[in-house]
Amino acid sequence: MKEVIAVVRMNMMNKTKSALTEAGVDAFFAHEAQGRGKGFVNAAIVSGVEQGYEEAAEVLGEKGKLYAKRMVTVVVPDDMVEDVVQAIMAANRTGKPGDGKIFVLPVGDAVRVRTHETGEKAIA
Amino acid sequence: MKEVIAVVRMNMMNKTKSALTEAGVDAFFAHEAQGRGKGFVNAAIVSGVEQGYEEAAEVLGEKGKLYAKRMVTVVVPDDMVEDVVQAIMAANRTGKPGDGKIFVLPVGDAVRVRTHETGEKAIA
Amino acid sequence: MKEVIAVVRMNMMNKTKSALTEAGVDAFFAHEAQGRGKGFVNAAIVSGVEQGYEEAAEVLGEKGKLYAKRMVTVVVPDDMVEDVVQAIMAANRTGKPGDGKIFVLPVGDAVRVRTHETGEKAIA
Repeated sequence: MKEVIAVVRMNMMNKTKSALTEAGVDAFFAHEAQGRGKGFVNAAIVSGVEQGYEEAAEVLGEKGKLYAKRMVTVVVPDDMVEDVVQAIMAANRTGKPGDGKIFVLPVGDAVRVRTHETGEKAIA
Repeated sequence: MKEVIAVVRMNMMNKTKSALTEAGVDAFFAHEAQGRGKGFVNAAIVSGVEQGYEEAAEVLGEKGKLYAKRMVTVVVPDDMVEDVVQAIMAANRTGKPGDGKIFVLPVGDAVRVRTHETGEKAIA
Repeated sequence: MKEVIAVVRMNMMNKTKSALTEAGVDAFFAHEAQGRGKGFVNAAIVSGVEQGYEEAAEVLGEKGKLYAKRMVTVVVPDDMVEDVVQAIMAANRTGKPGDGKIFVLPVGDAVRVRTHETGEKAIA
Protein backbone atom coordinates (compact mmCIF):
# COMPACT_ATOMS: atom_id res chain seq x y z
CA MET A 1 0.00 0.00 0.00
CA LYS A 2 1.34 3.45 -0.88
CA GLU A 3 0.45 7.07 -0.26
CA VAL A 4 0.71 9.09 -3.45
CA ILE A 5 1.00 12.82 -2.79
CA ALA A 6 0.72 15.17 -5.73
CA VAL A 7 1.37 18.89 -5.52
CA VAL A 8 -0.34 20.49 -8.47
CA ARG A 9 -1.56 23.88 -9.73
CA MET A 10 -4.72 25.19 -8.07
CA ASN A 11 -6.61 25.27 -11.36
CA MET A 12 -5.75 21.66 -12.16
CA MET A 13 -7.75 20.23 -9.28
CA ASN A 14 -10.86 19.27 -11.25
CA LYS A 15 -8.83 17.73 -14.04
CA THR A 16 -6.80 15.78 -11.49
CA LYS A 17 -9.98 14.63 -9.76
CA SER A 18 -11.41 13.31 -13.03
CA ALA A 19 -8.13 11.60 -13.92
CA LEU A 20 -8.07 9.84 -10.54
CA THR A 21 -11.65 8.67 -10.93
CA GLU A 22 -10.86 7.26 -14.39
CA ALA A 23 -7.82 5.51 -12.91
CA GLY A 24 -10.14 3.77 -10.47
CA VAL A 25 -9.42 5.87 -7.40
CA ASP A 26 -12.61 6.65 -5.54
CA ALA A 27 -11.28 8.10 -2.32
CA PHE A 28 -8.85 10.94 -1.96
CA PHE A 29 -8.13 14.05 0.08
CA ALA A 30 -6.93 17.47 -0.94
CA HIS A 31 -5.81 20.60 0.82
CA GLU A 32 -4.29 23.92 0.01
CA ALA A 33 -0.57 24.38 0.37
CA GLN A 34 1.93 27.01 -0.52
CA GLY A 35 4.92 25.84 -2.41
CA ARG A 36 8.00 26.68 -4.30
CA GLY A 37 9.70 24.55 -6.90
CA LYS A 38 13.23 24.74 -8.17
CA GLY A 39 13.43 26.99 -11.19
CA PHE A 40 15.88 27.16 -14.05
CA VAL A 41 16.61 30.30 -16.03
CA ASN A 42 16.09 29.16 -19.57
CA ALA A 43 13.84 29.76 -22.52
CA ALA A 44 10.99 27.82 -21.04
CA ILE A 45 11.00 30.10 -18.03
CA VAL A 46 11.10 33.35 -19.95
CA SER A 47 8.28 32.04 -22.07
CA GLY A 48 6.52 30.93 -18.91
CA VAL A 49 6.65 34.42 -17.41
CA GLU A 50 5.15 35.89 -20.57
CA GLN A 51 2.32 33.43 -20.22
CA GLY A 52 1.86 33.98 -16.52
CA TYR A 53 3.25 30.72 -15.23
CA GLU A 54 4.16 30.95 -11.62
CA GLU A 55 7.55 29.40 -10.86
CA ALA A 56 8.80 31.11 -14.01
CA ALA A 57 7.92 34.53 -12.62
CA GLU A 58 9.52 33.56 -9.36
CA VAL A 59 12.87 32.70 -10.88
CA LEU A 60 13.12 35.84 -12.93
CA GLY A 61 11.78 38.36 -10.52
CA GLU A 62 10.51 37.25 -7.15
CA LYS A 63 12.96 34.72 -5.74
CA GLY A 64 11.63 32.98 -2.68
CA LYS A 65 7.95 33.74 -3.08
CA LEU A 66 5.56 30.91 -2.34
CA TYR A 67 2.66 30.03 -4.59
CA ALA A 68 -0.72 28.58 -3.74
CA LYS A 69 -0.88 24.93 -4.72
CA ARG A 70 -3.19 22.00 -4.21
CA MET A 71 -1.86 18.94 -2.43
CA VAL A 72 -3.81 15.81 -3.39
CA THR A 73 -3.37 12.62 -1.37
CA VAL A 74 -4.52 9.12 -2.27
CA VAL A 75 -3.70 5.77 -0.68
CA VAL A 76 -3.71 2.88 -3.15
CA PRO A 77 -2.55 -0.75 -3.43
CA ASP A 78 1.01 -1.18 -4.74
CA ASP A 79 -0.21 -2.42 -8.11
CA MET A 80 -2.15 0.79 -8.76
CA VAL A 81 0.68 3.22 -8.02
CA GLU A 82 2.05 3.36 -11.55
CA ASP A 83 -1.39 3.96 -13.10
CA VAL A 84 -2.20 6.66 -10.57
CA VAL A 85 1.11 8.44 -11.13
CA GLN A 86 0.60 8.29 -14.89
CA ALA A 87 -2.94 9.62 -14.54
CA ILE A 88 -1.82 12.56 -12.41
CA MET A 89 1.01 13.33 -14.82
CA ALA A 90 -1.23 13.19 -17.88
CA ALA A 91 -3.70 15.55 -16.23
CA ASN A 92 -1.13 18.07 -15.02
CA ARG A 93 1.61 18.19 -17.61
CA THR A 94 1.79 21.45 -19.51
CA GLY A 95 5.55 21.36 -20.04
CA LYS A 96 5.97 24.61 -18.11
CA PRO A 97 7.74 25.02 -14.76
CA GLY A 98 5.20 24.64 -11.98
CA ASP A 99 3.57 21.47 -13.29
CA GLY A 100 4.17 19.93 -9.89
CA LYS A 101 5.67 16.96 -8.13
CA ILE A 102 4.47 13.55 -7.11
CA PHE A 103 5.79 11.66 -4.07
CA VAL A 104 5.22 8.00 -3.25
CA LEU A 105 5.42 7.00 0.42
CA PRO A 106 5.08 3.58 2.03
CA VAL A 107 1.93 3.01 4.09
CA GLY A 108 1.91 0.41 6.82
CA ASP A 109 -1.83 0.00 7.17
CA ALA A 110 -5.21 1.57 6.51
CA VAL A 111 -8.43 1.29 8.50
CA ARG A 112 -11.99 2.16 7.46
CA VAL A 113 -13.55 3.58 10.62
CA ARG A 114 -17.12 2.52 9.85
CA THR A 115 -16.41 -1.18 9.27
CA HIS A 116 -13.03 -1.66 10.91
CA GLU A 117 -11.76 -3.23 7.67
CA THR A 118 -7.98 -3.01 7.44
CA GLY A 119 -5.33 -3.29 4.74
CA GLU A 120 -6.32 -3.15 1.08
CA LYS A 121 -9.95 -3.83 1.97
CA ALA A 122 -10.03 -0.48 3.76
CA ILE A 123 -9.07 1.39 0.63
CA ALA A 124 -10.89 -0.78 -1.94
CA MET B 1 7.64 5.05 15.47
CA LYS B 2 4.56 5.60 13.29
CA GLU B 3 2.56 8.49 11.89
CA VAL B 4 -1.15 7.88 12.34
CA ILE B 5 -3.25 10.04 10.01
CA ALA B 6 -6.99 10.11 10.57
CA VAL B 7 -9.44 11.77 8.21
CA VAL B 8 -12.61 12.44 10.16
CA ARG B 9 -15.80 14.50 10.06
CA MET B 10 -15.36 18.19 10.88
CA ASN B 11 -17.71 17.98 13.85
CA MET B 12 -15.83 15.03 15.35
CA MET B 13 -12.67 17.01 16.05
CA ASN B 14 -13.30 17.71 19.74
CA LYS B 15 -14.34 14.13 20.41
CA THR B 16 -11.24 12.87 18.60
CA LYS B 17 -9.05 15.28 20.57
CA SER B 18 -10.44 13.99 23.87
CA ALA B 19 -10.03 10.37 22.76
CA LEU B 20 -6.39 10.97 21.87
CA THR B 21 -5.70 12.63 25.19
CA GLU B 22 -7.28 9.68 27.01
CA ALA B 23 -5.13 7.31 24.94
CA GLY B 24 -2.07 9.13 26.22
CA VAL B 25 -1.32 11.23 23.15
CA ASP B 26 -0.39 14.74 24.15
CA ALA B 27 0.89 16.15 20.89
CA PHE B 28 -0.92 16.19 17.59
CA PHE B 29 -1.64 18.36 14.58
CA ALA B 30 -4.77 18.93 12.60
CA HIS B 31 -5.71 20.68 9.42
CA GLU B 32 -8.66 21.04 7.14
CA ALA B 33 -8.86 18.91 4.05
CA GLN B 34 -11.44 18.19 1.43
CA GLY B 35 -12.14 14.59 0.77
CA ARG B 36 -14.22 12.01 -0.90
CA GLY B 37 -14.75 8.45 0.16
CA LYS B 38 -15.97 5.50 -1.82
CA GLY B 39 -19.71 5.15 -1.52
CA PHE B 40 -22.01 2.20 -1.96
CA VAL B 41 -25.65 2.45 -3.00
CA ASN B 42 -27.41 0.51 -0.32
CA ALA B 43 -29.86 1.00 2.48
CA ALA B 44 -27.28 2.58 4.73
CA ILE B 45 -26.68 5.25 2.13
CA VAL B 46 -30.31 6.08 1.48
CA SER B 47 -30.79 6.28 5.20
CA GLY B 48 -27.66 8.39 5.43
CA VAL B 49 -28.98 10.92 2.94
CA GLU B 50 -32.20 11.25 4.88
CA GLN B 51 -30.16 12.04 7.93
CA GLY B 52 -27.84 14.43 6.16
CA TYR B 53 -24.71 12.30 6.05
CA GLU B 54 -22.32 13.53 3.46
CA GLU B 55 -20.84 10.70 1.39
CA ALA B 56 -24.33 9.25 1.26
CA ALA B 57 -25.66 12.39 -0.41
CA GLU B 58 -22.71 12.32 -2.75
CA VAL B 59 -23.36 8.82 -3.99
CA LEU B 60 -27.02 9.40 -4.66
CA GLY B 61 -26.93 12.86 -6.11
CA GLU B 62 -23.67 14.74 -6.39
CA LYS B 63 -21.04 12.31 -7.61
CA GLY B 64 -17.56 13.71 -7.36
CA LYS B 65 -18.21 16.47 -4.88
CA LEU B 66 -15.62 16.92 -2.15
CA TYR B 67 -16.52 17.38 1.49
CA ALA B 68 -14.74 19.33 4.20
CA LYS B 69 -12.92 17.00 6.55
CA ARG B 70 -10.42 17.24 9.35
CA MET B 71 -7.09 15.51 8.97
CA VAL B 72 -5.53 14.70 12.35
CA THR B 73 -1.89 13.62 12.55
CA VAL B 74 -0.07 12.08 15.51
CA VAL B 75 3.33 10.45 15.72
CA VAL B 76 3.54 7.69 18.34
CA PRO B 77 5.80 4.79 19.37
CA ASP B 78 4.99 1.47 17.67
CA ASP B 79 3.45 0.02 20.82
CA MET B 80 0.87 2.81 21.02
CA VAL B 81 -0.41 2.52 17.44
CA GLU B 82 -3.12 -0.02 18.15
CA ASP B 83 -4.50 1.94 21.11
CA VAL B 84 -4.50 5.17 19.16
CA VAL B 85 -6.29 3.59 16.19
CA GLN B 86 -8.88 2.08 18.51
CA ALA B 87 -9.38 5.41 20.27
CA ILE B 88 -9.91 7.26 16.99
CA MET B 89 -12.33 4.56 15.79
CA ALA B 90 -14.32 4.59 19.00
CA ALA B 91 -14.66 8.36 18.83
CA ASN B 92 -15.63 8.53 15.17
CA ARG B 93 -17.71 5.48 14.44
CA THR B 94 -21.36 6.22 13.70
CA GLY B 95 -21.85 3.31 11.29
CA LYS B 96 -22.72 5.71 8.47
CA PRO B 97 -20.65 6.31 5.32
CA GLY B 98 -18.26 9.17 5.93
CA ASP B 99 -16.94 7.95 9.28
CA GLY B 100 -13.44 8.33 7.89
CA LYS B 101 -10.19 6.52 7.34
CA ILE B 102 -7.04 5.98 9.32
CA PHE B 103 -3.61 5.49 7.76
CA VAL B 104 -0.47 4.28 9.50
CA LEU B 105 2.87 5.34 8.00
CA PRO B 106 6.41 4.48 9.08
CA VAL B 107 8.44 7.32 10.60
CA GLY B 108 12.21 7.21 10.50
CA ASP B 109 12.92 9.74 13.20
CA ALA B 110 11.52 12.62 15.23
CA VAL B 111 13.31 15.63 16.69
CA ARG B 112 12.12 18.06 19.38
CA VAL B 113 13.50 21.41 18.25
CA ARG B 114 13.84 22.93 21.72
CA THR B 115 15.92 20.15 23.26
CA HIS B 116 17.29 18.33 20.22
CA GLU B 117 15.96 15.07 21.67
CA THR B 118 15.47 12.47 18.95
CA GLY B 119 13.59 9.19 18.52
CA GLU B 120 10.88 8.21 20.98
CA LYS B 121 12.15 10.78 23.50
CA ALA B 122 11.15 13.51 21.07
CA ILE B 123 7.55 12.36 21.06
CA ALA B 124 7.28 11.22 24.69
CA MET C 1 15.00 9.89 -0.18
CA LYS C 2 13.19 11.31 2.86
CA GLU C 3 10.29 13.59 3.63
CA VAL C 4 11.19 16.03 6.38
CA ILE C 5 8.13 17.55 8.03
CA ALA C 6 8.64 20.42 10.42
CA VAL C 7 5.90 21.89 12.56
CA VAL C 8 7.00 25.37 13.56
CA ARG C 9 5.66 28.64 14.93
CA MET C 10 3.68 30.75 12.46
CA ASN C 11 6.08 33.67 12.75
CA MET C 12 9.12 31.48 12.04
CA MET C 13 8.11 30.70 8.48
CA ASN C 14 10.33 33.27 6.76
CA LYS C 15 13.34 32.37 8.89
CA THR C 16 12.74 28.67 8.15
CA LYS C 17 12.42 29.40 4.44
CA SER C 18 15.75 31.23 4.41
CA ALA C 19 17.42 28.47 6.40
CA LEU C 20 16.20 25.86 3.93
CA THR C 21 17.44 27.86 0.97
CA GLU C 22 20.87 28.20 2.61
CA ALA C 23 20.88 24.44 3.23
CA GLY C 24 20.42 23.93 -0.49
CA VAL C 25 16.72 23.11 -0.49
CA ASP C 26 14.97 24.86 -3.35
CA ALA C 27 11.60 23.18 -3.30
CA PHE C 28 9.25 22.90 -0.37
CA PHE C 29 5.62 23.12 0.60
CA ALA C 30 3.92 24.66 3.58
CA HIS C 31 0.47 24.75 5.02
CA GLU C 32 -1.32 25.90 8.11
CA ALA C 33 -2.05 23.43 10.83
CA GLN C 34 -3.33 23.55 14.34
CA GLY C 35 -1.31 21.75 16.89
CA ARG C 36 -0.62 20.99 20.46
CA GLY C 37 2.65 19.89 21.97
CA LYS C 38 3.35 18.22 25.26
CA GLY C 39 4.05 20.78 27.95
CA PHE C 40 5.93 20.55 31.20
CA VAL C 41 5.15 22.63 34.27
CA ASN C 42 8.51 24.08 35.15
CA ALA C 43 10.32 27.40 35.28
CA ALA C 44 10.71 27.56 31.54
CA ILE C 45 6.97 27.35 31.15
CA VAL C 46 6.10 29.98 33.71
CA SER C 47 8.64 32.22 32.08
CA GLY C 48 7.17 31.32 28.72
CA VAL C 49 3.70 32.40 29.74
CA GLU C 50 5.05 35.73 30.94
CA GLN C 51 6.56 36.21 27.53
CA GLY C 52 3.51 35.03 25.63
CA TYR C 53 4.76 31.67 24.45
CA GLU C 54 1.94 29.44 23.45
CA GLU C 55 2.33 25.92 24.76
CA ALA C 56 3.40 27.49 28.04
CA ALA C 57 0.09 29.30 28.36
CA GLU C 58 -1.67 26.10 27.43
CA VAL C 59 -0.09 24.06 30.19
CA LEU C 60 -0.80 26.58 32.90
CA GLY C 61 -4.26 27.65 31.95
CA GLU C 62 -5.87 26.38 28.80
CA LYS C 63 -5.23 22.65 28.62
CA GLY C 64 -6.22 21.17 25.32
CA LYS C 65 -6.32 24.31 23.23
CA LEU C 66 -4.84 24.04 19.76
CA TYR C 67 -2.49 26.64 18.36
CA ALA C 68 -1.95 27.77 14.80
CA LYS C 69 1.27 26.35 13.42
CA ARG C 70 3.00 26.10 10.10
CA MET C 71 3.77 22.68 8.71
CA VAL C 72 6.70 22.77 6.29
CA THR C 73 7.44 19.76 4.07
CA VAL C 74 10.55 19.07 2.01
CA VAL C 75 11.69 15.93 0.23
CA VAL C 76 15.46 15.54 0.08
CA PRO C 77 18.10 12.88 -0.68
CA ASP C 78 19.19 10.83 2.34
CA ASP C 79 22.55 12.59 2.57
CA MET C 80 20.88 16.00 3.01
CA VAL C 81 18.54 15.02 5.84
CA GLU C 82 20.94 15.84 8.67
CA ASP C 83 21.79 19.28 7.24
CA VAL C 84 18.15 20.10 6.68
CA VAL C 85 17.17 19.05 10.20
CA GLN C 86 20.02 21.13 11.65
CA ALA C 87 19.01 24.13 9.53
CA ILE C 88 15.39 23.94 10.67
CA MET C 89 16.48 23.55 14.30
CA ALA C 90 18.88 26.49 14.14
CA ALA C 91 16.18 28.70 12.65
CA ASN C 92 13.46 27.71 15.12
CA ARG C 93 15.12 27.12 18.45
CA THR C 94 14.25 29.69 21.08
CA GLY C 95 14.54 27.30 24.03
CA LYS C 96 10.88 27.85 24.92
CA PRO C 97 8.10 25.26 24.71
CA GLY C 98 6.46 25.47 21.33
CA ASP C 99 9.66 25.49 19.26
CA GLY C 100 8.23 22.62 17.27
CA LYS C 101 8.93 19.13 16.06
CA ILE C 102 10.61 17.61 13.05
CA PHE C 103 9.65 14.22 11.59
CA VAL C 104 11.61 12.24 9.02
CA LEU C 105 9.64 9.78 6.86
CA PRO C 106 10.85 7.38 4.18
CA VAL C 107 9.90 8.26 0.59
CA GLY C 108 9.74 5.54 -2.04
CA ASP C 109 9.92 7.73 -5.11
CA ALA C 110 9.46 11.23 -6.47
CA VAL C 111 8.37 12.33 -9.93
CA ARG C 112 8.69 15.77 -11.57
CA VAL C 113 5.49 16.10 -13.60
CA ARG C 114 6.93 18.36 -16.31
CA THR C 115 9.89 16.14 -17.25
CA HIS C 116 8.87 12.74 -15.86
CA GLU C 117 12.24 12.57 -14.07
CA THR C 118 12.08 10.20 -11.12
CA GLY C 119 14.10 9.51 -7.99
CA GLU C 120 16.67 12.01 -6.78
CA LYS C 121 16.67 13.74 -10.18
CA ALA C 122 13.08 14.75 -9.55
CA ILE C 123 14.00 16.61 -6.39
CA ALA C 124 17.44 17.94 -7.45
